[in-house]
Amino acid sequence: MSVHLHPPRIEDLHPIAGLRIGVTQAGIRKADRKDLTVVLIDAGASVSGVFTQNRFCAAPVQVCREHLSASQGIRAMVVNTGNANAGTGEDGLKRARETCVALAQALNIQPDQVLPFSTGVIMEPLPHDRIIAGLPAAIAAAGAAASAQQWVDAAEGIMTTDTVPKAASAQVQIAGKTVSITGISKGAGMIRPNMATMLGYVATDACVAPALMKDLALALAEGSFNRVTVDGDTSTNDSFVVIATNHAAHAPITSLNSPEGQALFQAMLQVARQLAQAIVRDGEGATKFITVQVEGGRDSAECRQVAYAIAHSPLVKTAFFASDPNLGRILAAVGYAGITDLDQTNIDLYLDDVHVAVQGGRHPAYREEDGQRVMKQSEITVRVVLGRGAASDTVWTCDLSHDYVSINADYRS
Amino acid sequence: MSVHLHPPRIEDLHPIAGLRIGVTQAGIRKADRKDLTVVLIDAGASVSGVFTQNRFCAAPVQVCREHLSASQGIRAMVVNTGNANAGTGEDGLKRARETCVALAQALNIQPDQVLPFSTGVIMEPLPHDRIIAGLPAAIAAAGAAASAQQWVDAAEGIMTTDTVPKAASAQVQIAGKTVSITGISKGAGMIRPNMATMLGYVATDACVAPALMKDLALALAEGSFNRVTVDGDTSTNDSFVVIATNHAAHAPITSLNSPEGQALFQAMLQVARQLAQAIVRDGEGATKFITVQVEGGRDSAECRQVAYAIAHSPLVKTAFFASDPNLGRILAAVGYAGITDLDQTNIDLYLDDVHVAVQGGRHPAYREEDGQRVMKQSEITVRVVLGRGAASDTVWTCDLSHDYVSINADYRS
Repeated sequence: MSVHLHPPRIEDLHPIAGLRIGVTQAGIRKADRKDLTVVLIDAGASVSGVFTQNRFCAAPVQVCREHLSASQGIRAMVVNTGNANAGTGEDGLKRARETCVALAQALNIQPDQVLPFSTGVIMEPLPHDRIIAGLPAAIAAAGAAASAQQWVDAAEGIMTTDTVPKAASAQVQIAGKTVSITGISKGAGMIRPNMATMLGYVATDACVAPALMKDLALALAEGSFNRVTVDGDTSTNDSFVVIATNHAAHAPITSLNSPEGQALFQAMLQVARQLAQAIVRDGEGATKFITVQVEGGRDSAECRQVAYAIAHSPLVKTAFFASDPNLGRILAAVGYAGITDLDQTNIDLYLDDVHVAVQGGRHPAYREEDGQRVMKQSEITVRVVLGRGAASDTVWTCDLSHDYVSINADYRS
Repeated sequence: MSVHLHPPRIEDLHPIAGLRIGVTQAGIRKADRKDLTVVLIDAGASVSGVFTQNRFCAAPVQVCREHLSASQGIRAMVVNTGNANAGTGEDGLKRARETCVALAQALNIQPDQVLPFSTGVIMEPLPHDRIIAGLPAAIAAAGAAASAQQWVDAAEGIMTTDTVPKAASAQVQIAGKTVSITGISKGAGMIRPNMATMLGYVATDACVAPALMKDLALALAEGSFNRVTVDGDTSTNDSFVVIATNHAAHAPITSLNSPEGQALFQAMLQVARQLAQAIVRDGEGATKFITVQVEGGRDSAECRQVAYAIAHSPLVKTAFFASDPNLGRILAAVGYAGITDLDQTNIDLYLDDVHVAVQGGRHPAYREEDGQRVMKQSEITVRVVLGRGAASDTVWTCDLSHDYVSINADYRS
């Protein structure tokens, strides 16, 4: 089940020159499943990443951070599903590092030029021997040329409880050159990214100055993955990586504020946002896609705080699932969001175009059937006006259904 | 469905001299339902209350706060179910006040000697005409003498989605006199009290100096209702009221630190905690009662922060429902609880007597079947040791089941 989400079509995805992907079945947790993906990056690319703020961050996240700060240039990534290599202590770090060493040897590069990623069950030892044994087949699958099919394969290769593979692509003109942007993501539960989501990758062949990459990755994450939530559970493994292969023949972009920088950023943001929203559309058990827009705050942080209180409330989420305009639950969430000097008599609530509450009370013209009409839709915008200032922010989420409980009660069995 | 929770038996409840209760059917939302309760308090009682910190607090909560600070002495309380009178603006305040006026006239007291309470659906106009019409029957039901049966009736009269009425009682010796304590509570969903729960009342015939009442109510709430959560949704109507009728013939207690003050406080805390835990045991859809104990923190606030992160995680809660020892989910919640300088390599996790994780990784001796054995129980203690200090705190919660979704998807229909 997912909300208006369709598997990517090859013809919609642009290959990224300078980047090849191979996927194989390594039998990491279950047989007959594409569970190992390698991404091979030509020398000269700029790579940056942002990672979970969870203090229990996984071993591969720790290794990624080390390698991104130490490396002479990232040349490969390896992604396994079926095991998160989180909550695994020193032994987990050792296994993540050995995986990097094996891939580096096969590619004749340095271990710190490899980024490892793991996703799956927490607190079980990583079967890194199976990963290492699978590397030659994955490398062979990457072949010699970049292709759109490889992105489709990768979108499938990184899935766990996802029901639909997630990929997005765009093209934009930079200094007279056509530049391509393609990305993939995975995730459906344990989703309340704090820096990035479970796994998200966006690559472009545009030329970006290495010094700009960190800012670019952060800005993209802030506008996309850091604004979605399924269940409020920030994962141990959230990783978002941005790659510029620098294959397009234009002068490197050195500022996000230049016309070229803005053109590239907006196109990449569109791809990143599509990937982030795809995670919500495929949220575990999701039947509705909800946009929570909070306006009139003193700053965007307090707008976000209110938006997350609404987006995380199990009562609000079950009301959406039931198509029940039990909208007082939204007001209650606004009230407990933590703004201590909030004045309820300034607050307005809208459901799409329906004005539900005015000055903290039910709008005199509000009719239950109008609320009902909107609640029955599969895409809904909740708009809260705080009446305290001019800031706003938006969060995307989904409803809480029986299937969420089923999926998470059965996940390991 | 509830976890080890049984309806109160008359023989277990002590009547409180100086306090009578009457319950009737006023047809507030549904017919044939006890939905209106009045509590009549003799002159000379000390009364205090603590209320929700939700900024969208309900009209009756606002009126209670006014009356408790203005009144010459609270003499009556009126509680309706079926409608929360929250998110109702000025009109809601007017209706709450008119209800107080009507009860005051019937009892020949002042309107500000009445405390009103409402619980039920948010953002619908309070049918106060039906409440006012029902008052004479409720007053008549209170009769002339205090009785245990009245407490049983009241526990039923304040229920909404509760499946079991909640009452608790205790006796304690104060200065050679036997003092009684009896209380009731209600609530099953929208439970993450911040000051107090949906509705909780604890009364004693002990003699307590009026000046001490606020401290007593706060300390009781902190040790009981402020430590339970079902779904993390802090209600708009949370109210906890403590009444000392001062009928026992002993010198008034003027300090919680005196031997008499401690004896009374501990006995009242036992009753309040039983009532608060009853709400969790009757948590919507609950099949398990979970004690989350966090130790080794720098202060109790950070222990509570971690305990609530675990207690609110939908992934942790569904794992309990499934009896699945997917315990990495608990570590993940510890990691995102918001302690920014938390060192994962210092953290230990226990499930009852089973040592699951040591220094942030799986304990070498931990076997899945041991975790499985504990997870199958209906009462489970999760113990997290942070290794940062000597503080600790405890939160009580329940699991997240299919029935939670069903109950909240169907509540209004």
